[in-house]
Amino acid sequence: MLKPNGNYRNLKESYLFHHISQKVEAYRAAHPDLPLYRLGIGDVSRPLCGEAIKALHAAVDDQADTRTFRGYTPECGIPEFRQAVAGYYARRNVQPDPDEIFVSSGASDELGDILDLFDVSSSALITQPAYPAYIDASVMAGRKVSFLNAGPGNDFLPMPQADTEADLIYLCSPNNPPGAVYYREQLQDWVDYANSRGAVILFDAAYEAFIEEDLPHSIYETQGADRCAIEICSLSKTAGFTGTRLGYTVIPKSLEREGMNLNAMWVRNRTTKTNGISYILQKGGIAVFTDTGLKQIQENIRAYKENARVIMQALDAAGIRYWGGRNAPYVWMACPDGMKSWEYFDLLLNEAQVIGTPGAGFGECGEGFFRLSSFGNPEDTKIAAERIRKLAKGE
Amino acid sequence: MLKPNGNYRNLKESYLFHHISQKVEAYRAAHPDLPLYRLGIGDVSRPLCGEAIKALHAAVDDQADTRTFRGYTPECGIPEFRQAVAGYYARRNVQPDPDEIFVSSGASDELGDILDLFDVSSSALITQPAYPAYIDASVMAGRKVSFLNAGPGNDFLPMPQADTEADLIYLCSPNNPPGAVYYREQLQDWVDYANSRGAVILFDAAYEAFIEEDLPHSIYETQGADRCAIEICSLSKTAGFTGTRLGYTVIPKSLEREGMNLNAMWVRNRTTKTNGISYILQKGGIAVFTDTGLKQIQENIRAYKENARVIMQALDAAGIRYWGGRNAPYVWMACPDGMKSWEYFDLLLNEAQVIGTPGAGFGECGEGFFRLSSFGNPEDTKIAAERIRKLAKGE
Repeated sequence: MLKPNGNYRNLKESYLFHHISQKVEAYRAAHPDLPLYRLGIGDVSRPLCGEAIKALHAAVDDQADTRTFRGYTPECGIPEFRQAVAGYYARRNVQPDPDEIFVSSGASDELGDILDLFDVSSSALITQPAYPAYIDASVMAGRKVSFLNAGPGNDFLPMPQADTEADLIYLCSPNNPPGAVYYREQLQDWVDYANSRGAVILFDAAYEAFIEEDLPHSIYETQGADRCAIEICSLSKTAGFTGTRLGYTVIPKSLEREGMNLNAMWVRNRTTKTNGISYILQKGGIAVFTDTGLKQIQENIRAYKENARVIMQALDAAGIRYWGGRNAPYVWMACPDGMKSWEYFDLLLNEAQVIGTPGAGFGECGEGFFRLSSFGNPEDTKIAAERIRKLAKGE
Repeated sequence: MLKPNGNYRNLKESYLFHHISQKVEAYRAAHPDLPLYRLGIGDVSRPLCGEAIKALHAAVDDQADTRTFRGYTPECGIPEFRQAVAGYYARRNVQPDPDEIFVSSGASDELGDILDLFDVSSSALITQPAYPAYIDASVMAGRKVSFLNAGPGNDFLPMPQADTEADLIYLCSPNNPPGAVYYREQLQDWVDYANSRGAVILFDAAYEAFIEEDLPHSIYETQGADRCAIEICSLSKTAGFTGTRLGYTVIPKSLEREGMNLNAMWVRNRTTKTNGISYILQKGGIAVFTDTGLKQIQENIRAYKENARVIMQALDAAGIRYWGGRNAPYVWMACPDGMKSWEYFDLLLNEAQVIGTPGAGFGECGEGFFRLSSFGNPEDTKIAAERIRKLAKGE
C-alpha cells in the first residue's frame, strides 16, 4: 500500500488571501457601484521593459525557424544568462563565478525545491511575520520549524539570540511583509552566527532592487557568506516577471557541509529533476541585465517607489507609524487606535473602499499591523492613500 | 550543524551522455574534415508550429501593455490551458475535469516534483531499460528502488509478476529507450495490479503523440485508473517544446490513499511551492491544442516518423532486429554480431561517423542494444541509415 506524505496533514490551511477575496466579493455584491482601491496584492502592474519584450519576440522567432531553433537548454542555465547575472552582481562588487549562478523559475519555486539539498532532520528557523510558504514548504518535508519574532522593538529585523537554535535560516531582506532591510553589520552577525554553528542561510533577495540607501543588496556583501549562504532571487519584482517567471539562485562553490559540496549537489539535482528553463524566458532575462534593460526597469521601480512615497506621506499626515516603504515595495503600518488587523481591514474596506493585507495573516506577531503594497497603479494609490488619511483623521 | 541530504552519496554518476560527447569530441579532433551524423540525442530539431509561434508573440505583446499585462497566474494552470488539455483528452474519450489537470514545466520536472506526495517509505518499481532520472529522483529521496527487466522475451513490455512488490510504479508508454507500447489489456492488468495492492502508477505519456496504431495514449483508457494513476505528459515531443518547456499532469479527484486526496495535496503543493507557470508559455500551449495547432504539429510528427521509417528500412535491409520506431520516435536495435553496446558505438562512430546511444547506458539489461533517434534532420538520417546498413553488410 502506497503511503502518502503524511506531513501534509500538519499544514494549517492558509486562509489569508482567500478570506480577503471573500470579504471583498461580499462587499462588492452589496455595493456594486462603489469603486474599490487595491493596495493588497504583492503583484506588479506595470508591463515588462522594452528590451525584455524585444528579446522575448526575437527568441520566439528563433523557435520558428529550423536554423535558429533551440531544443533542450543546459539545466543550470544558458551560459549567457549565468554570465548576465554575474555581471549584475559585479556592479556591486560581488563576484560570483557564472557556475555559481543557477537559473530558476522564480524565488517561490526555488525556495521549495532547494530544500531537497538538506536532510529532514535539519530544523528551519524563520523570522516572523513571514511569507507563509517558508513555513509550509518545511512542514511538507517534516522539518522542525522554529520562529524568531520581529516587531517594533527590533525594527522588524530580528537577530540571533544566545539561545537561538537553527540549522537552516530563512532571511529575507528587504523583507516581506514589513519592508525592513538589514544593515551590513547585522547581516555580518547572521553570517558569523551561521558559520560558527555550521548553519546554512537561505537568503531571499527578491526585493533587493528596491533598495535605494547604502544597504546590502546581497548576503555576499559580507565576509564569509560564501561558506554559509545560498541566495535566491527573482526577476518578478525586479523586472515585473511575476507572470512571466524567471529567477536565479547563487550557490557558492565553497559551500560545503559534511564533505558534501552544495553547488555540486544542486548541479546533480537540476540535471536529474529538470530539463532546464525555457530558452525564451532566459533570453528575456538576459535583456533585462543589459545597460538599457537595467535603465528601463529602474523607471518601473521608480514609479512603484513614488506610490510608496504617496502612501507614506498620507500616513505621516495621519500620524500613523509605519516601517518599510523606503527601500521596499511594502509599507507596513501599525493599525490606528490599537485596532486588530482584521478589524482595520473591515473598517478600511467598509468606510474607504480600500483593500490592504492584515498583518495577522503573516504570523501571530503580525497582529495589529497592516501591509500596503506600492505595486498598484498611481491614480488608485493616490485616492487610496488620501482615504486612509481622511479615515484616520476622522475627516 | 546543518546535515546535507546524504542520499546524494548513493547516486551513481551518470556518465552516459558525457561519455558520448567525450568520445565524439576526440573523434572530431582526430578527423576534423569528416562530417558526423547524429542519431543519438532525444531532442527535437523542427521548429514550433505556426499557431504556437503566433500565440507566443501575442502573449509577449500582452506583457508589453498595462491594459493586457498579466502578473501571477493561477498556480495549477490558467483555466483556458486546463480546458484545452481536457479537450485534447476528450478526443480519445478520456474525460478529465479541468480541475484534474495541472500545468507543469515539463515531464522531467514533474516526475521529480511529484514524489513529494509520497512518504519516503514507499518503494519505487522501475522497468528497465529506463530513463535514468526515474532512478536518481527516487535515490535522492532515500526511496527503495526495485526493477522489472524488459527484454526481447517480453517485447520490452514487462508485466507484474506474482512476486512483484511495489508502492509506486513507473510506467512509460511508448517507452524510452525501447519505443515499445503497451496494449490496452496490458495496461488494464497493471491498473488492476495497482488497485489490488493500493499502489500508485506514475504514467509517463511523453511520447503518446507518436502512436499511430490502435493502442492506448493514456492510462485512463482503462477501467479504474482514476483510482490508482497519475499521468505525466509534456509538449516537448508532442509539439517541439523541449527548449520552450511546458507540460501537464493529470491527478484524478478520486485518487486517494489513507484518506488523503492526492489531487487536493497537489493543489496545496503547487500553491505553496510555485507561483504558476509562465503566462506566455501557457498561451503557446493553448494554441497547440486548437484544431489548427494539432494539424500543424502532426506535420512535424510525420516528418520524424518518416525518419524512423528510413532507419527501420535500413535495419530490415541489413537483417538487424529492432523494436519501436512505429509508434515511437526511437528505434531500439540489437547490436549486430552480438556486439556490446559501447563496442558498437565505437564501431559506428569510427567506421560510419554515425552517433547513436548505447543501450547499456539505460540499465544493465540494455546491454547489447542500441538506440537510434528519429528526431534528427531528414538528410542526415538518410545518410546515417544507409551507412548503418552498409557497415552491417560489410559493403
